[in-house]
Amino acid sequence: MIIVGERINGTRTRIREAVTARDAAFITEEARRQAEAGADYIDVNAGTDPAREPEDLAWLVQIVQRSVGKPVCVDSPNVEALRAGLEASEGRALVNSASAEGGRAEAVLNLVKEHGARVVALTLDDTGLPKTAQQRIEIARRLAAKAEEVGLERDDIFIDPLARAVAVENEQGAELLEAVGGIRESLPGLHVICGLSNISFQMPSRRLLNRTFLAMAMAGGLDAAILDPLDGGLMATVCAAEVLLGRDEMCLGYIQAHRAGRLAEWS
Amino acid sequence: MIIVGERINGTRTRIREAVTARDAAFITEEARRQAEAGADYIDVNAGTDPAREPEDLAWLVQIVQRSVGKPVCVDSPNVEALRAGLEASEGRALVNSASAEGGRAEAVLNLVKEHGARVVALTLDDTGLPKTAQQRIEIARRLAAKAEEVGLERDDIFIDPLARAVAVENEQGAELLEAVGGIRESLPGLHVICGLSNISFQMPSRRLLNRTFLAMAMAGGLDAAILDPLDGGLMATVCAAEVLLGRDEMCLGYIQAHRAGRLAEWS
Repeated sequence: MIIVGERINGTRTRIREAVTARDAAFITEEARRQAEAGADYIDVNAGTDPAREPEDLAWLVQIVQRSVGKPVCVDSPNVEALRAGLEASEGRALVNSASAEGGRAEAVLNLVKEHGARVVALTLDDTGLPKTAQQRIEIARRLAAKAEEVGLERDDIFIDPLARAVAVENEQGAELLEAVGGIRESLPGLHVICGLSNISFQMPSRRLLNRTFLAMAMAGGLDAAILDPLDGGLMATVCAAEVLLGRDEMCLGYIQAHRAGRLAEWS
Repeated sequence: MIIVGERINGTRTRIREAVTARDAAFITEEARRQAEAGADYIDVNAGTDPAREPEDLAWLVQIVQRSVGKPVCVDSPNVEALRAGLEASEGRALVNSASAEGGRAEAVLNLVKEHGARVVALTLDDTGLPKTAQQRIEIARRLAAKAEEVGLERDDIFIDPLARAVAVENEQGAELLEAVGGIRESLPGLHVICGLSNISFQMPSRRLLNRTFLAMAMAGGLDAAILDPLDGGLMATVCAAEVLLGRDEMCLGYIQAHRAGRLAEWS
């Protein structure tokens, strides 16, 4: 399972303040804790004004890379900020995100190819956020085709079928699970990723829903997630699901997590 | 989700003692707590010597029926005990279990039909406990055909593809998940049930594995489980999975469980 740690995000006030104040110690600590908890990528989102965002994102990339030996996931709706982040990045970054909206896909995908990066592609087009599994699968096919045109390999493409709130539309969990399986089946070799928290929006006991959804989606082929690795219950679930999918040889990862005291609270 | 409460089982010393001593108060309390926690069936297994088991099982059935308004799941390897249990039972009982082993299937299935009951059919034949998903699916097909020959409807048949320990054979979680999906697909209309605890045998933090497996299997089509309904984490997971499969209209079941304080500890 590929874990993208989501905590360094400018929508969190404390992060935006740290970016503006160039508080490297705070960012370093956020990166270090996520890497230690099992993040494979550290997402960096500055969340600042477009005019200063390229510089801010480049700074975030540098600080995170200096802190931990993990690649970054450069996260912005702004192509210029993505470019600045990628230029500051060493190693194979992930870019968050492309979508099928407007003319945006080509610019982002070309940038990804140019920097030898990988990309999160959202199943979003000009008709908006899809509701059904079939709509998500159809947009995923178009995005994969565009990414391959630009020269990306399937292993470089992470499709995010976009969670919607079950509180608002009760069938959205089932549609999303069906989309994960359908994308997996119709586009073998690419990755399916998901941000978890939208699914439980406006519901009580949200972490229980997020964690249960993660296990269900992993069973259907989800192989990457954007999440808070400091949520111990979520990471314990990933650990258990890896065992149950036969991906944890000799159950060693699970047993190590148990010995490190990371599972007991969740059992 | 159909929940079969597994606690009244003679393999637990305290239960066997209560059966032998005809301790109705203890059995009543075990039945009541399971029903209150959400069990749809109360499993009764006397676990006593074959000579006295029919009488013991009939007693258990009577006590449980007097305690709660739930049907029983009559549980024994002994056909005569099953018969005595069914004769004592009112309403539509579940019989645990038939299998494709020896000549046992016919006797049990005829008994089930005769009493208008339903049946748990284990994917077990004379070659032993199956290892692969395909073996499980193939035995399930034979069992379903036999049950239909006897005149049972698909809705009366609960196939149990039998969990094996992932600690011993790392691929057994994945095989079992594949079996659940495969049985669901090749035999539409029947139920797929599973006892959970074998999967985590000899592993640490077993409840985490059981609960994660339950969510994953529900995503693949498991619609019944034999479990301890007093395991709050397990029942919270069922509650969350029902929401995520779009089966909890307006999320009312989940919200009620939240208000009753059954979810907070697991979030």
